[in-house]
Amino acid sequence: MPTDPTPTPALTSAEVGAGPGILGVGSAEGGLLAPVWADTPVAAAVGDGAWLQAMLDAEAALSRAQARLGTVPWAAAQVITRSARAEHLDLAALARQARQSANPVVALVREFTALVAAQDADAARYVHRGSTSQDILDTAMMLVAGRALRLIRTDLAHAERALAALAGTHRDTLMAGRTLALHAVPTTFGLKAAGWRQLVLDAAHKLHTLIAQGPVQLGGAAGTLAGYLEHAPHADPAVYVPGLTRAFAAELGLAAPLLPWHVLRTPVADLAQGAAFTCTALGKIAVDVLSLTRTEVGEVHEPAPAGRGASSAMPHKRNPVLATAVRSAALQAPQLAATVLGCMLSEDERSAGAWHAEWEPLRALLRLAGGAAHQTVELVSRLSVDAGRMRANTALTGGALISERIAAVLAPLLGKAAARELLNETCARAAHTGTALADLLRADERVAAALAAPGHADLFAPEAYTGAAGLLSERALSRTMPAAGH
Amino acid sequence: MPTDPTPTPALTSAEVGAGPGILGVGSAEGGLLAPVWADTPVAAAVGDGAWLQAMLDAEAALSRAQARLGTVPWAAAQVITRSARAEHLDLAALARQARQSANPVVALVREFTALVAAQDADAARYVHRGSTSQDILDTAMMLVAGRALRLIRTDLAHAERALAALAGTHRDTLMAGRTLALHAVPTTFGLKAAGWRQLVLDAAHKLHTLIAQGPVQLGGAAGTLAGYLEHAPHADPAVYVPGLTRAFAAELGLAAPLLPWHVLRTPVADLAQGAAFTCTALGKIAVDVLSLTRTEVGEVHEPAPAGRGASSAMPHKRNPVLATAVRSAALQAPQLAATVLGCMLSEDERSAGAWHAEWEPLRALLRLAGGAAHQTVELVSRLSVDAGRMRANTALTGGALISERIAAVLAPLLGKAAARELLNETCARAAHTGTALADLLRADERVAAALAAPGHADLFAPEAYTGAAGLLSERALSRTMPAAGH
Amino acid sequence: MPTDPTPTPALTSAEVGAGPGILGVGSAEGGLLAPVWADTPVAAAVGDGAWLQAMLDAEAALSRAQARLGTVPWAAAQVITRSARAEHLDLAALARQARQSANPVVALVREFTALVAAQDADAARYVHRGSTSQDILDTAMMLVAGRALRLIRTDLAHAERALAALAGTHRDTLMAGRTLALHAVPTTFGLKAAGWRQLVLDAAHKLHTLIAQGPVQLGGAAGTLAGYLEHAPHADPAVYVPGLTRAFAAELGLAAPLLPWHVLRTPVADLAQGAAFTCTALGKIAVDVLSLTRTEVGEVHEPAPAGRGASSAMPHKRNPVLATAVRSAALQAPQLAATVLGCMLSEDERSAGAWHAEWEPLRALLRLAGGAAHQTVELVSRLSVDAGRMRANTALTGGALISERIAAVLAPLLGKAAARELLNETCARAAHTGTALADLLRADERVAAALAAPGHADLFAPEAYTGAAGLLSERALSRTMPAAGH
Amino acid sequence: MPTDPTPTPALTSAEVGAGPGILGVGSAEGGLLAPVWADTPVAAAVGDGAWLQAMLDAEAALSRAQARLGTVPWAAAQVITRSARAEHLDLAALARQARQSANPVVALVREFTALVAAQDADAARYVHRGSTSQDILDTAMMLVAGRALRLIRTDLAHAERALAALAGTHRDTLMAGRTLALHAVPTTFGLKAAGWRQLVLDAAHKLHTLIAQGPVQLGGAAGTLAGYLEHAPHADPAVYVPGLTRAFAAELGLAAPLLPWHVLRTPVADLAQGAAFTCTALGKIAVDVLSLTRTEVGEVHEPAPAGRGASSAMPHKRNPVLATAVRSAALQAPQLAATVLGCMLSEDERSAGAWHAEWEPLRALLRLAGGAAHQTVELVSRLSVDAGRMRANTALTGGALISERIAAVLAPLLGKAAARELLNETCARAAHTGTALADLLRADERVAAALAAPGHADLFAPEAYTGAAGLLSERALSRTMPAAGH
Repeated sequence: MPTDPTPTPALTSAEVGAGPGILGVGSAEGGLLAPVWADTPVAAAVGDGAWLQAMLDAEAALSRAQARLGTVPWAAAQVITRSARAEHLDLAALARQARQSANPVVALVREFTALVAAQDADAARYVHRGSTSQDILDTAMMLVAGRALRLIRTDLAHAERALAALAGTHRDTLMAGRTLALHAVPTTFGLKAAGWRQLVLDAAHKLHTLIAQGPVQLGGAAGTLAGYLEHAPHADPAVYVPGLTRAFAAELGLAAPLLPWHVLRTPVADLAQGAAFTCTALGKIAVDVLSLTRTEVGEVHEPAPAGRGASSAMPHKRNPVLATAVRSAALQAPQLAATVLGCMLSEDERSAGAWHAEWEPLRALLRLAGGAAHQTVELVSRLSVDAGRMRANTALTGGALISERIAAVLAPLLGKAAARELLNETCARAAHTGTALADLLRADERVAAALAAPGHADLFAPEAYTGAAGLLSERALSRTMPAAGH
Repeated sequence: MPTDPTPTPALTSAEVGAGPGILGVGSAEGGLLAPVWADTPVAAAVGDGAWLQAMLDAEAALSRAQARLGTVPWAAAQVITRSARAEHLDLAALARQARQSANPVVALVREFTALVAAQDADAARYVHRGSTSQDILDTAMMLVAGRALRLIRTDLAHAERALAALAGTHRDTLMAGRTLALHAVPTTFGLKAAGWRQLVLDAAHKLHTLIAQGPVQLGGAAGTLAGYLEHAPHADPAVYVPGLTRAFAAELGLAAPLLPWHVLRTPVADLAQGAAFTCTALGKIAVDVLSLTRTEVGEVHEPAPAGRGASSAMPHKRNPVLATAVRSAALQAPQLAATVLGCMLSEDERSAGAWHAEWEPLRALLRLAGGAAHQTVELVSRLSVDAGRMRANTALTGGALISERIAAVLAPLLGKAAARELLNETCARAAHTGTALADLLRADERVAAALAAPGHADLFAPEAYTGAAGLLSERALSRTMPAAGH
Repeated sequence: MPTDPTPTPALTSAEVGAGPGILGVGSAEGGLLAPVWADTPVAAAVGDGAWLQAMLDAEAALSRAQARLGTVPWAAAQVITRSARAEHLDLAALARQARQSANPVVALVREFTALVAAQDADAARYVHRGSTSQDILDTAMMLVAGRALRLIRTDLAHAERALAALAGTHRDTLMAGRTLALHAVPTTFGLKAAGWRQLVLDAAHKLHTLIAQGPVQLGGAAGTLAGYLEHAPHADPAVYVPGLTRAFAAELGLAAPLLPWHVLRTPVADLAQGAAFTCTALGKIAVDVLSLTRTEVGEVHEPAPAGRGASSAMPHKRNPVLATAVRSAALQAPQLAATVLGCMLSEDERSAGAWHAEWEPLRALLRLAGGAAHQTVELVSRLSVDAGRMRANTALTGGALISERIAAVLAPLLGKAAARELLNETCARAAHTGTALADLLRADERVAAALAAPGHADLFAPEAYTGAAGLLSERALSRTMPAAGH
Repeated sequence: MPTDPTPTPALTSAEVGAGPGILGVGSAEGGLLAPVWADTPVAAAVGDGAWLQAMLDAEAALSRAQARLGTVPWAAAQVITRSARAEHLDLAALARQARQSANPVVALVREFTALVAAQDADAARYVHRGSTSQDILDTAMMLVAGRALRLIRTDLAHAERALAALAGTHRDTLMAGRTLALHAVPTTFGLKAAGWRQLVLDAAHKLHTLIAQGPVQLGGAAGTLAGYLEHAPHADPAVYVPGLTRAFAAELGLAAPLLPWHVLRTPVADLAQGAAFTCTALGKIAVDVLSLTRTEVGEVHEPAPAGRGASSAMPHKRNPVLATAVRSAALQAPQLAATVLGCMLSEDERSAGAWHAEWEPLRALLRLAGGAAHQTVELVSRLSVDAGRMRANTALTGGALISERIAAVLAPLLGKAAARELLNETCARAAHTGTALADLLRADERVAAALAAPGHADLFAPEAYTGAAGLLSERALSRTMPAAGH
């Protein structure tokens, strides 16, 4: 069993974690073209400032982990930790210098070391001790992702509650089921809302697992931890290596991996796929809202507080801007995830390019998922549902909405094929003439008697042909959000 | 609690499942441009013939499930099941007719009904009873995927064993760790193989979960099961609906979903992401093999039985064709997964297009993952490892491979920055002059003494600076494949 | 100036090109899941059989080109040409053997040489003389692509004519313009059709350029043509190299490139982008048709000959299957193009994997573009347009469709902001109460007079506010299809 | 013929265009994770500040265009133009408010109108007259793209010159041609550089066309220009509409389109494909540089001024950071282009989401292409080429590099198959024993005589088997960059 690491001396939470202030650094960046995430909490949580702070958090935690195991003095770790504040560094200069080494850590270590040295020359010797750029950047990636995913999970939880309420309230709210753009058979809005909630739960469960699994990166220059061991000359590697990994993970609330994953990019691919899934799951809600919002359909309306959804030209419009924004995120996410997945083809012990191509797409994915979740909360919490219009629309086909049922009733009488043929023809005639299907069928003497049979009183009533819609809506509510905890 | 379904009467396995014969239908299709999967088992398992058989399996299982619950006569279900053989239908004609309805099920139901009717006119009435095209096609998708994933899992298990052997055998085989195309610090081939194995395990665990979770689709025309209930007039829907779903699932060895997922496409997105992950995980192995195979590196060689890897022009070449093929799969998969993920934006109760756009990319993904896994087995099982060349290559930089270590040794003496500067300069000189770094350093009087200190006997020996490589290789072997079972 | 090549002796067209027969080989492959291209001409033109024939065409043309320049005897070139028939080779066996070399050409050369040798042992010596697999496969790719693109261009020409007719006929057919899912201002169906036509023209012009530019590949083992020159010991390379390239190109109706493009993949990237563009251009038409087909909108209907669009469950439905199929192609194409574009990262003189990853996605793109074009022809040629329903729908908002105009009229009177505010409020009231906007406004004494001013007689008439719609429709017709010629 | 527009009164260039100052707004945004474009000119040219300025440029140009045609007073257009400076608006506030309407223009028009009103209340009435958000945003997109593309074109021109020099200098510099990771036959570095140049030219020609074609957007609320015409009550629409479009285009140096392209997204798809192509074309150069930089190969070295390419851990490394950065761009671009291409599926007269999903990916593409081009200039301008190492490496296979040639020489003697077999066996033996292929072959009495024939003096000399490499390098230089002009 590995060594029991020395317990961490008390540091205030402000020393260890990033307060909300620093997350705000860079929060305005690039939002002009991104209505889906501009000014949402996730934008700040994944901005350049947040990444910089996370890299500093990783450096500080590494020194504390080494201190726990006795290879860095506690005093040094404390100075390092106290200095690790993004606001003390020049973000723009670091971005500029990152071009010299194709990553921002080399310059960061140089500047941060100088910062620490200004406090305590001896402590500066312990900055980034035995480490490598990728250990810091990958660990920061997991910190940033974890912080973003927690925000997203919270928003998904809000959305889930709103959808559960919609599913309950509208358990029996009749509406037309639509397939391939056309009215098919009746359904209920409750079932639709229950389906949306199911997708939110699917996303929440995936994110929950991701939050729990995000690992620190600790491998040194080529994944052997040789640099760390060089500074622990008297330690038993079989104890020190897992011990340091666990201590580093514990300091940051991340998981301890079995192996360094410099070029085993499963954690990054999983994040990308989870974030992209979240976007497309919410995108399904958005396309449904857009479908039901159409002027001719008019069954739901987005919440429209003053100013929301206004057009620059047309005073009568209240554009479905939340659904539009969410859909725009869903259209972008899958391809970004493909890029990150493609970066699994990382040659050797560190890729020249595949590693570097992950960062921006992963950030974009977190931002899109976070923005989409944030906007979905408002979309589904205050969605206006027009049950009267839904019912009215079920009548648009003159009764053909239940043609499947009539076919089943007539099949024993006429044979399956003949019943179908009769209905094909009669439905076409109903559509053409505007006469109700029921009237046309009752005028057919072959079938009038069958349709008049007892037990068929409500044969043409769409509300009598919603199948298990209500039941399914209820049943789906039995599934729950993942228990919080991480 | 739902009803306990009537037990299934005995049917032979040939009646229920698809034998190897039918899987072969269509196996040759389109393989000329796909060396990665041509003539591999998965190609047959996901070909048109296999899909057709799976659709028939779904139709037959549906009738048996309904028979279990008493809404279809057992005799009819048996006739239907016996007739459900792909070889009795005209695959090309069905493909042609699929254009009329944008899916192959409408024509299939028509032809299959006629086939059953030729056996038993009454039984034909029960074909596709209460059902809809998407219930059949989606269920078939899960059957086909499950069959393909089991093949892939088996190949991954073979690859895992071969990689465990490589990791064990080469636990201490010294080689250069390479980052950004350059020699970095020493590592071992065992650690590299252990990392490859880790990715194979990651893929295997994902596929294992997917196999267990693949759900039947059972929703009827718009996801309310109204059509199924119409044919069960005396049943309690609260009992019948979950009962039918479970019976259908049990007949096919699939899972019973909480809700119909016609437009809640999580199962399809999960399959696509799992298959794409498998391709890119194996792709990492491929790019490493290619890197190590380069003429100038020469550290590994692909197995080359007679004829393998021959060039049409150059007699001396033994091309790394297995790694090439696996990489080609990995380059294609992420974008195919993006398409499937994008199809989650399925409007209404069935999408006009987003559903249809899933089928070919999903098949392609299964084919690529299956082909890549199949070829990886041979690649890693018979990979020729040239330990001598690996060791020889560690000497190429004249000792600079351990510059990180020397920097750590000299830092206390000279200060971190000065040590680094000295080494920068000396390494450059070593590279320029071809003199060994050790010799140049020992000629520097400031450092000669430090380097000669006791305990530094092997300071320049790369094998003494592999850190925890051996330890990590061993430790990684503690992780295991998912237990078989499904 | 290069040598004037010896003229080609007369060969029948059947000897040189691929007749329709051979294109049919493999035409049924994999179409069950692809309603968009199953059984369309392009499916045969890009199937395995067509690729095999194209590879043989390339081998034959190479021998004839060498004969033209005097380095292969004419008699041998004639035997080679006559033998180059796909039906003489075993396609499935070649696909199987392709795994041995990660491309099908090595086995093809072996089998084809044997085939020629059986005719004339001496001629067999000249098969694939000086050549390399990639010269043959890349040239075949351009042949196959060219044949497919010509089919697509023809279908685009048919679609263009149908759309020109629609734009002309419906120049002044009033309909609601819709933005962000809502009625915006009036437009005409003619303008919509003219816009669709514009996209068809954009695609046609791109494909036209691609057809003209498709180059032969002629580089030999590593792009230096050394192999070809080795067999032309007495030729002046400065004459022979461009001469052979031009002769090879002339034999096949392809272009002669400036350099071999083994790893300069612009021609392949261009093809992929052109085909993907075609799919998405047609996809725009499809999503519009789907939008206008919705039950609540009902403004257009797909052509529905007997059996087309039938649902397996609901007799009343006539599903928009053509638009659905076209949209499904458009959803798949961009990601396939991304894969091909990514393959431009072809390392060295031939990539181990990036080359191989192009073939299947490029074929898929051609197939999707071809299928989409084929189905679009029928979609737009027989689209049923319900002008009455279009006009009726313009009334759905109670007159708010022209709120932009009223705002412009009232702005000078009330000020821009106040006019807008009044209209915001009044439009909301109109929507809420169902009263016509005109009536509400006329009841407002501030504005009644302004609205009654002379020249405002038709102020609320949507047909009086279609702007330049008719004019633009007409004007757009001035643009023409590319002149045929290649 | 359309009206001859009133000439524009003189405005200083500072009034009309965006000076370098404003482009700098937002230039630091998000660069920390993007070493490929951080602090490059294109980053500023496509930042939020640049977009804001471009939107203001569009508003101002619209008023001037209307003034030219007499529907806006010149004095108002001048006030509007002078006020149209991004530094007068609050960028962060606009980004925040963009969420209310899913685009930034609605808030911009409000704030900008207030700004103008503060100067001249009457002029404010003419801001955004008859216009719509999409006219402004799409036109701004083309302005921003045009500015970025000009920067990229300039960098491509620098790269082209450097590559022409490399191709000339190294016309006959011998090196190993490599295919599928292995030495194949000899080639020259000049031919490789000529190939790189060819790709740069391909990209430059595409961008050149795009610069010339970028159109203004002018359609009004739903593409009919009704809003613009409403404010030109006395104009002949057949004159006014094309006249206004041309005047607007002339003011901005953009093209005048035949139709509004609100949902005919060819110009955007073309931009995306052109930028992505540029990235992948440059990516080919990068992967080649990385391949040749490998420690074992060592044939080229990146320019490494002080500090460039330093590792945070290993003093001896000079990482190929330019190639790494360029490759990272190329790995991201194709998928971003796929997103933009997918947005061609824009339903109705303005899409709810597909339009909005274009903006961020298009900006990312321009940024990546611009960054990649900028870094490529330095990469190829100062690339260090080690001709000695190149030649030395050609000897690594003991002569097998010319096995193709020997096979051609021996074929007439032994027959093609037997010659090949002999060489297969002898090359394997040479590789195994380390004996030179020439020695082994000369020891074979069957072939010794043939190899000793006159004219075969240099048979085993790789420099005598470079085919047309030098010739092709020269010939390729005949192709030129597009003439500047736009």
